[in-house]
Amino acid sequence: MAFVDPTVSLTEIQEVIAASFPGSGNTCTEIGPGYAIARHDVGDGDIRPGGFISGPTQFSTADAALWYATFVALDRIETMTLTSELSIRFLRPAVGSVLYARADIDMVTRRSVVGTVRMWCDDEPTRITSTAQGTYAIPIPK
Amino acid sequence: MAFVDPTVSLTEIQEVIAASFPGSGNTCTEIGPGYAIARHDVGDGDIRPGGFISGPTQFSTADAALWYATFVALDRIETMTLTSELSIRFLRPAVGSVLYARADIDMVTRRSVVGTVRMWCDDEPTRITSTAQGTYAIPIPK
Amino acid sequence: MAFVDPTVSLTEIQEVIAASFPGSGNTCTEIGPGYAIARHDVGDGDIRPGGFISGPTQFSTADAALWYATFVALDRIETMTLTSELSIRFLRPAVGSVLYARADIDMVTRRSVVGTVRMWCDDEPTRITSTAQGTYAIPIPK
Amino acid sequence: MAFVDPTVSLTEIQEVIAASFPGSGNTCTEIGPGYAIARHDVGDGDIRPGGFISGPTQFSTADAALWYATFVALDRIETMTLTSELSIRFLRPAVGSVLYARADIDMVTRRSVVGTVRMWCDDEPTRITSTAQGTYAIPIPK
Repeated sequence: MAFVDPTVSLTEIQEVIAASFPGSGNTCTEIGPGYAIARHDVGDGDIRPGGFISGPTQFSTADAALWYATFVALDRIETMTLTSELSIRFLRPAVGSVLYARADIDMVTRRSVVGTVRMWCDDEPTRITSTAQGTYAIPIPK
Repeated sequence: MAFVDPTVSLTEIQEVIAASFPGSGNTCTEIGPGYAIARHDVGDGDIRPGGFISGPTQFSTADAALWYATFVALDRIETMTLTSELSIRFLRPAVGSVLYARADIDMVTRRSVVGTVRMWCDDEPTRITSTAQGTYAIPIPK
Repeated sequence: MAFVDPTVSLTEIQEVIAASFPGSGNTCTEIGPGYAIARHDVGDGDIRPGGFISGPTQFSTADAALWYATFVALDRIETMTLTSELSIRFLRPAVGSVLYARADIDMVTRRSVVGTVRMWCDDEPTRITSTAQGTYAIPIPK
Repeated sequence: MAFVDPTVSLTEIQEVIAASFPGSGNTCTEIGPGYAIARHDVGDGDIRPGGFISGPTQFSTADAALWYATFVALDRIETMTLTSELSIRFLRPAVGSVLYARADIDMVTRRSVVGTVRMWCDDEPTRITSTAQGTYAIPIPK
């Protein structure tokens, strides 16, 4: 798809996250045409045996990035979209204090948004730790 | 596959979870031939806008159930297995105070364990809230 | 979900397959409460290097089984359902002259049908060669 | 990952496809750093009810593109790699006489290659019809 700069702003997205999902531990650090980046500050509870960032933590950040990207894809804050499916592949042990996930939109229809997500730690965006694809369902107006 | 009763015990699995992954919030409540059931007591941080149990919480419990099932599949406590991929489908809004996930093993090879997971809330195992399939990689002995 | 015997018949399903999708090479051999079984007679074009039944052949049969299962799930012949997503895991080399796929319905909503599929060769239903999960979208009535 | 121009050539890849998998109906039209493009000329048997290119045909072309991309990722012709898992999302009805799939490598390890695939028809690479992610397993040398 061809994407244009969103009119929805990063500040608006950050306010919605803080207001509606304060416990997620994820925030949005960047948006642009057809994409959004999520950031997660890694805490003690996110670490699994071996010292690696856990799979569920990575899933959570991937899911958040895709949620933020739906705001960009729809170019409006639509909080009641829901993940309908997501598949994730873990590519290497994830070690670091900050986890990033970038979601790129593949498709927007009236019913759903599909995107691809890539994750990395700290300042190493070329060392992908996991990759995912998934679908958010858009509520059908009554 | 045909499965037999595991010789690894539920108590051993619970001890390993408590020792190696105390912050996960998941525990194992039942094992049997080719399967394991995980339990997650839903907390405030697990709830997303709308009052539903969040997708990442469900992913975490599905992933835990599949991890426990690898102990059953291998019939030994092998904590260094790692999720290599998992796909999850969210089927209905999940509402309840306890989330369960049952993982059934589809296949065990020298390199990996594949299983199917179904989740439900409270005492309604026929009202599945999400379903997943995934793979755990087994470390190759050196 | 709790399923009852479908009123749609195996003969009706076989007629629809023959009429609407004659080139697929797949047929339906059995239906029951919440499930359907597809059969594929393996031809020369289905074999990949090494002598194994190819991944796309297995995907095709899995997809067919899930399509037949949507007739059971909806209890009517609804040919315009479409696969919206499907994930498949290949578990062992598939060798044989007949490939079977059994699809079990996980969930039916107004918008979609989700199911789990397991495949095997010849008369060895316990030697699963691949396993899949996927979603069929149901056309929304206008 | 950072990719360089492959030393394996397009001609070599095309010869291997013709020799080892002549019935697939897919060929390779382009390779470059970290990617490969597959082409499928749509035949009558590829069309499903409604006049659309069938899901299995799209899966087959996606799987082929990812196979070709493993040659690029490993920078050698390694025909015995096998798909271990692949998830695919169908985004819009696929209509056209030629189907293309581009596979971009996300990761190469000693054990596997992971990539993301996007498909389109004819000369419309921005109108993606389906998107996929998957893993090829590399045979472990004895």
